Amino acid sequence: MSTLSHFDESGASRMVDVGPKAETHRVARASAVVRMLPATLALIRDKGVAKGDVLEVARLAGIMAAKKTADLIPLCHPLPLTSVKLDFSFPANDLLRIEAAVTVFGRTGVEMEALTAVSVAALTVYDMCKSADRAMTIEAVRLEEKDGGKSGHFVRDPV
Amino acid sequence: MSTLSHFDESGASRMVDVGPKAETHRVARASAVVRMLPATLALIRDKGVAKGDVLEVARLAGIMAAKKTADLIPLCHPLPLTSVKLDFSFPANDLLRIEAAVTVFGRTGVEMEALTAVSVAALTVYDMCKSADRAMTIEAVRLEEKDGGKSGHFVRDPV
Amino acid sequence: MSTLSHFDESGASRMVDVGPKAETHRVARASAVVRMLPATLALIRDKGVAKGDVLEVARLAGIMAAKKTADLIPLCHPLPLTSVKLDFSFPANDLLRIEAAVTVFGRTGVEMEALTAVSVAALTVYDMCKSADRAMTIEAVRLEEKDGGKSGHFVRDPV
Amino acid sequence: MSTLSHFDESGASRMVDVGPKAETHRVARASAVVRMLPATLALIRDKGVAKGDVLEVARLAGIMAAKKTADLIPLCHPLPLTSVKLDFSFPANDLLRIEAAVTVFGRTGVEMEALTAVSVAALTVYDMCKSADRAMTIEAVRLEEKDGGKSGHFVRDPV
Amino acid sequence: MSTLSHFDESGASRMVDVGPKAETHRVARASAVVRMLPATLALIRDKGVAKGDVLEVARLAGIMAAKKTADLIPLCHPLPLTSVKLDFSFPANDLLRIEAAVTVFGRTGVEMEALTAVSVAALTVYDMCKSADRAMTIEAVRLEEKDGGKSGHFVRDPV
Amino acid sequence: MSTLSHFDESGASRMVDVGPKAETHRVARASAVVRMLPATLALIRDKGVAKGDVLEVARLAGIMAAKKTADLIPLCHPLPLTSVKLDFSFPANDLLRIEAAVTVFGRTGVEMEALTAVSVAALTVYDMCKSADRAMTIEAVRLEEKDGGKSGHFVRDPV
Repeated sequence: MSTLSHFDESGASRMVDVGPKAETHRVARASAVVRMLPATLALIRDKGVAKGDVLEVARLAGIMAAKKTADLIPLCHPLPLTSVKLDFSFPANDLLRIEAAVTVFGRTGVEMEALTAVSVAALTVYDMCKSADRAMTIEAVRLEEKDGGKSGHFVRDPV
Repeated sequence: MSTLSHFDESGASRMVDVGPKAETHRVARASAVVRMLPATLALIRDKGVAKGDVLEVARLAGIMAAKKTADLIPLCHPLPLTSVKLDFSFPANDLLRIEAAVTVFGRTGVEMEALTAVSVAALTVYDMCKSADRAMTIEAVRLEEKDGGKSGHFVRDPV
Repeated sequence: MSTLSHFDESGASRMVDVGPKAETHRVARASAVVRMLPATLALIRDKGVAKGDVLEVARLAGIMAAKKTADLIPLCHPLPLTSVKLDFSFPANDLLRIEAAVTVFGRTGVEMEALTAVSVAALTVYDMCKSADRAMTIEAVRLEEKDGGKSGHFVRDPV
Repeated sequence: MSTLSHFDESGASRMVDVGPKAETHRVARASAVVRMLPATLALIRDKGVAKGDVLEVARLAGIMAAKKTADLIPLCHPLPLTSVKLDFSFPANDLLRIEAAVTVFGRTGVEMEALTAVSVAALTVYDMCKSADRAMTIEAVRLEEKDGGKSGHFVRDPV
Repeated sequence: MSTLSHFDESGASRMVDVGPKAETHRVARASAVVRMLPATLALIRDKGVAKGDVLEVARLAGIMAAKKTADLIPLCHPLPLTSVKLDFSFPANDLLRIEAAVTVFGRTGVEMEALTAVSVAALTVYDMCKSADRAMTIEAVRLEEKDGGKSGHFVRDPV
Repeated sequence: MSTLSHFDESGASRMVDVGPKAETHRVARASAVVRMLPATLALIRDKGVAKGDVLEVARLAGIMAAKKTADLIPLCHPLPLTSVKLDFSFPANDLLRIEAAVTVFGRTGVEMEALTAVSVAALTVYDMCKSADRAMTIEAVRLEEKDGGKSGHFVRDPV
């Protein structure tokens, strides 16, 4: 394993030069899981009970956060994203799963944008439901897939 | 379990009115864990190998993100934070633990600021090390402690 | 009519000194109207047809914009808002009305925050529906009420 | 009239994928009108009386707001604008008209940037003059022209 | 000389805790000088020649930058500024002097806000005039005065 | 010397149209010098004494500020930067020199990004050390080199 590309030979952090890289269509998918009380998940799923749509707020927060990635992550490049979408599913009665897919036509990948989108969507779910369930936990924020760059196609191994 | 305070009686989302609440000194602590290859963690811990200080970059990203919380989480109140600090520890040879403590003198708590700080610090660690270890996972983003508001002192149960 | 408070005696713009003013509870309400084709309004009202909730997106955009007011309006003071809410109504079959109410405990009023909230909510409605109705017009962005400052209680005359 | 492109088939909001669209030179023009007391308009026009240049402040606010459009409007794409300009005229003794023209070389149009520019410029005029004329109203924020995309050349019908 | 307050005993950077400090009225003044060709300064001073007001653009940029200080300087506290003003003078035929005064009622000082305001105003002057005079230099960005905190009244010695 | 390109023929400020310019690889280098007490510089250089790394904080602040340039400088174009790096040196026992190099593949140059990076890095050094040395001065913020545009290669004359 070599050293990290975000440091130069003297150990100084830098925004890596992507100027020589080709502009290509790039895709990244990331996911996060939020563990909560079954009663909290019921509140989220049944909008009639909660009297409001938690997931729609979280979805917008995630989309907007993807656009702020270069402002949040110090060494990320600013990128003109071509699409951002978020989806929700319920793998168990106490688990909310969030998945984001981001695309760009650019010189570097959008992993960080997809990871930022799911993280901020998950934080927003926490914020919306914290009065009901303070112990909610965000688990397993991770990259699922990435394609379009020189490093090839990455797909996470199914566990 | 009642309905969620971020919605009004018609289900519309809103920024809850904290005007009637007293200004008090409030504290929140949150944590996150990043799981990675032992070789990646070694790279982070031994700055001589990585030729740079990953954690110092992550720390600053977390501090700056705490200040952006109201810009990221749609229904959060803007707050004049009085302090933000982040600490790192290594509970196992493949685990990095991040903890943030945030304080404010204000009308509402700073849980979201502490959770945002650890999330963005963890995302920054991912960004710095992703060229070496794409499968790194952020786990267990959660509130550890909260004090100073009307809802009393919350401390997460040790698992 | 005297000169404008945002300029000093030499004509230079400035952020007016509100330091000597008392911190009081302040409220402002503003409204905007969006005129559109009846078919567009039907699409907004009947979420089943549009397959999505335009107004919930606009509401969140308005709330988040209120928090960005000091970043948008050059001479506005940054303020720790205590609440922001937006409501929608349909005064005619081609009219959407947006109203925002904003509060703060501070040294200056929140008219600009309420006006910014309704403006950005209206722009978001335009963005969501522009593929269907490019000629939509935002009309009558105006202050409805303001209270809590030294200048007293302002309520707009009913037309 | 079909459904709205900002929602997918399940009704979820998303940032529409513009990746497949061609990069072309795109233009949009938008306008807004601010209605005020004739004495207020006189104050704006005669900088000697107001002792300062309201319109120059509004112009800069509009230009800077155009650059923040993707940060304000949840589903807008970030775009590397190539130009922004704002002009002012006085169609009547109580009316200020603001027009913005925005260009980009990109995959989607800049209507929202032009509309945001005139809206924030109008809000800034309100802010600068509100101490003199609290009942000022922003009227008729609308798209005037748009060109360069697949949907062809749009010019608003003269009323 | 002791160690620096922005680091804790382990060398980690942090946002210093100002919670225990009293809220007081605080003032800071900073200045910057821009050295340029006499012909460039003439262009700035004689708006008829330049056909525009460079200094008014720079003034607004400086005021708006003061509000972004906590977003730019990693360990600065967000503060609800009560006033920001900038003044310009011409100490020689090739020198523009910029001075900013910032006030707050808060728990920490506003030196960084005043220094940020003059720096960004000076950068804006450079941007506006760079096509005419690329070698312009910003000199002597410095704190002039500071008052209102526990450390007492600081006034820079006249050179 | 002609008039300034940021104003149109009527004196109105505008974001200049760079649409007709070719996309080329562009580079800019800028520098700043911070003058301080020798004891302060010793504190910065000897991390063991300061118990923390002032320059690494300043470096990140500078990189992040480069990405905010279009948000700070009113008439700057938003640009998808391809690299940002900052270096530090010590030309005398009371002088810290900061140099930034920024690249882009775009339609306009990145002088302002490089100048903003060194300015904000210098301000951050001031912030970190101000408790020890309030009279520190930022001197000689200037463009060192620029290449890649139609105006050719600019290199500052050595003094």
